[in-house]
Amino acid sequence: MADSAMRLAGLVFAALREASEDPPGVTRASYGPGERAAHAILRAAAEEAGLEVDCDAVGTLCMTLPGADRDLPALVIGSHLDAVPHGGNYDGAAGVVMGLALAAELRTQGRMLPRDLVVLGIRAEEMCWFPMLYLGSRAAFGLLPPDAPDTLRRTDSGRTLAAHMEEEGFDPDVIRQGRASLDPRLIHAFLEPHIEQGPALVQAGLPAAIVTGIRGSLRYRSCRATGAWGHAGAVPRAGRRDAVLAVAALATALEEFWRATEAAGRDLVLTMGECWTDPALHGPTKIPGEVRFSLDIRSEDPAVLEEAGALLRDQAARIEAGRGVTIDYGAPLPVPPATMDARLRAALQRGAEAAGVPVLQMASGAGHDALTFAGLCVPTAMLFIRNTGGSHNPEEAMDLADFRAAFAVLAAAVGEIAA
Amino acid sequence: MADSAMRLAGLVFAALREASEDPPGVTRASYGPGERAAHAILRAAAEEAGLEVDCDAVGTLCMTLPGADRDLPALVIGSHLDAVPHGGNYDGAAGVVMGLALAAELRTQGRMLPRDLVVLGIRAEEMCWFPMLYLGSRAAFGLLPPDAPDTLRRTDSGRTLAAHMEEEGFDPDVIRQGRASLDPRLIHAFLEPHIEQGPALVQAGLPAAIVTGIRGSLRYRSCRATGAWGHAGAVPRAGRRDAVLAVAALATALEEFWRATEAAGRDLVLTMGECWTDPALHGPTKIPGEVRFSLDIRSEDPAVLEEAGALLRDQAARIEAGRGVTIDYGAPLPVPPATMDARLRAALQRGAEAAGVPVLQMASGAGHDALTFAGLCVPTAMLFIRNTGGSHNPEEAMDLADFRAAFAVLAAAVGEIAA
Repeated sequence: MADSAMRLAGLVFAALREASEDPPGVTRASYGPGERAAHAILRAAAEEAGLEVDCDAVGTLCMTLPGADRDLPALVIGSHLDAVPHGGNYDGAAGVVMGLALAAELRTQGRMLPRDLVVLGIRAEEMCWFPMLYLGSRAAFGLLPPDAPDTLRRTDSGRTLAAHMEEEGFDPDVIRQGRASLDPRLIHAFLEPHIEQGPALVQAGLPAAIVTGIRGSLRYRSCRATGAWGHAGAVPRAGRRDAVLAVAALATALEEFWRATEAAGRDLVLTMGECWTDPALHGPTKIPGEVRFSLDIRSEDPAVLEEAGALLRDQAARIEAGRGVTIDYGAPLPVPPATMDARLRAALQRGAEAAGVPVLQMASGAGHDALTFAGLCVPTAMLFIRNTGGSHNPEEAMDLADFRAAFAVLAAAVGEIAA
Repeated sequence: MADSAMRLAGLVFAALREASEDPPGVTRASYGPGERAAHAILRAAAEEAGLEVDCDAVGTLCMTLPGADRDLPALVIGSHLDAVPHGGNYDGAAGVVMGLALAAELRTQGRMLPRDLVVLGIRAEEMCWFPMLYLGSRAAFGLLPPDAPDTLRRTDSGRTLAAHMEEEGFDPDVIRQGRASLDPRLIHAFLEPHIEQGPALVQAGLPAAIVTGIRGSLRYRSCRATGAWGHAGAVPRAGRRDAVLAVAALATALEEFWRATEAAGRDLVLTMGECWTDPALHGPTKIPGEVRFSLDIRSEDPAVLEEAGALLRDQAARIEAGRGVTIDYGAPLPVPPATMDARLRAALQRGAEAAGVPVLQMASGAGHDALTFAGLCVPTAMLFIRNTGGSHNPEEAMDLADFRAAFAVLAAAVGEIAA
């Protein structure tokens, strides 16, 4: 079975790569050319496969295989079609293509599910384009702040979300007015297949994983340590307010907390992804008076995130008292952890057994559109596909054999899930 | 005594400020407009005071009060006239003005020293303009690399040293050919009065200090820590090669070494003045794969600098083994410490006692043109003037009463020093 579905998937992946190639890798800007091309390719393939195709006012592509009772809440499968600059071909797209391949396969087999199967091509998930978490899925549910179209600017163009939406033929008024095209009450379950963005499946030697939960996060995008600039040679240690040493001490304290948390068997990752002295002010012979940095702290366990927040406050107080350096973390962007639906996970597990595909159980460290659905109490699950080279870079590489294995799990489980 | 000398100094300082004002503070680019104006002001004041005025091919201003025997090696007093962008009015200039005021005072008094007193206005000491230590004084001694005029570029303009020298009417061929205008054998002693660039005199409540030595340094301008970029949420701790955490660990180890060295009563300051992830590559949700940083390590004690160098190598090995992050410090810029001449220091001490000025004995943390002279075995000493607000910033503030106190020390000592 499924050879025609795999052929379809292979063709769509090839077309996506060709349409958004930007060596090295692919680029699909949210509400930009690469994403537009990806939506056109999926739409054409869905029409070719005989699905009903629709698009809402914010650009969400809905590809529907009608079910026996069209009034029942639908089973929804999907992910996003944008991609970071010079990223990989499969981050996001793999989930949409798998949903499409499944719908096409069911139609080929003449199999009718009890309810509609809706495959979603979601917009604007990659936050590198617009600084808003899960922009596209939250827009479809009417969850964005009303000023988002006019205050969010795309990082590459500097132009507003409204301008880019209008350019693509969509309607920012829908966001301004908080109108939704998706209704959580009309969704029976949401499934998001996605490449794994870390090395766990490669290390485990397994093609796919059932996600147990999505790590929540505590993210501070714009932290600032403020000390005092001074002469690197002339000021003794006691007279210094060195912002770099202060941030180094903070990073070291966070790393110690991380080790201790891990040693206690609790989930945590943390990252100071940005850390910089200002090139207009710094110099090799100046005591650094200011450092800007970001913090990204993630855990499946909300208690760990709370402890991390308390540690940050405690460290800021210690550093100010001991070093004369004030630390302002700015406003946090907290995202609570999400547990994946137990019934869906069990169904996927039975699907894996039926398909003879060995799968890993693992947490997702990355956030996904699935968080938007889970946050609205839609029963949600994720299926990870093995991927080498990490993600958000051109080395990202998914093997089609692994895609086929994950597809087999989903295909074996869809009957139970749609029941 | 010295009222007319203080009036002269006050007028020159006011003229300097007015000619190079660039709010906040003053700007006097090496071989640029502010430095040019400062040289013109000093030249005019020296001519007015009846000194012999000359300028060499690299722009060093020589203002000479003839002595009894003009064939004897001269007593030289001086400092630099350039200033960092938006810096203070006195860094460098105070030493030149004090030399000029002393020569003018001696002439007014009709006092003739046994040898010439030469006041130097040196070019291009501030390394923020051209990346070369003590460019101006080393040029005058023929010590620069021959390719310096054509390879050094001014950081603000991007143009070469040769282009800027020619624009100011000087001759870069002198540097290319290694020709000197100053000869260490013809210098009896070199004295550099300078504002203190740290807070020691303010803390001690004293107007002036006799410098015991100038800290040597081990400086690495372009260090690089290279790990691997990755997804902030999806890669577990063990799989990460986080360059920010690696540099934080290095900074923490250096700070521990600093505390231990200080606790053992040994001299040390160290600074990571620049530390940055690349804005084109970093992001709050990316594990940082690279950090660039600088290191500036100074001590009066060459053994401490050697130990610091060994610690850096050891830390690089540990960090590579433990974190998979390689640290490349690049080529070091080592400057050996310099001891100030004991006879000159003793003479200044006796001058301070004669003038009734209480003085501190202290090391200079900052490097100065005096290092060039001391490196050529010219007997060298420095006199520090109290200064609030640090240096290299517009808050730098020297009180003229402190300048007067330091002047009194110098005036009381000059007879013994010139003997």
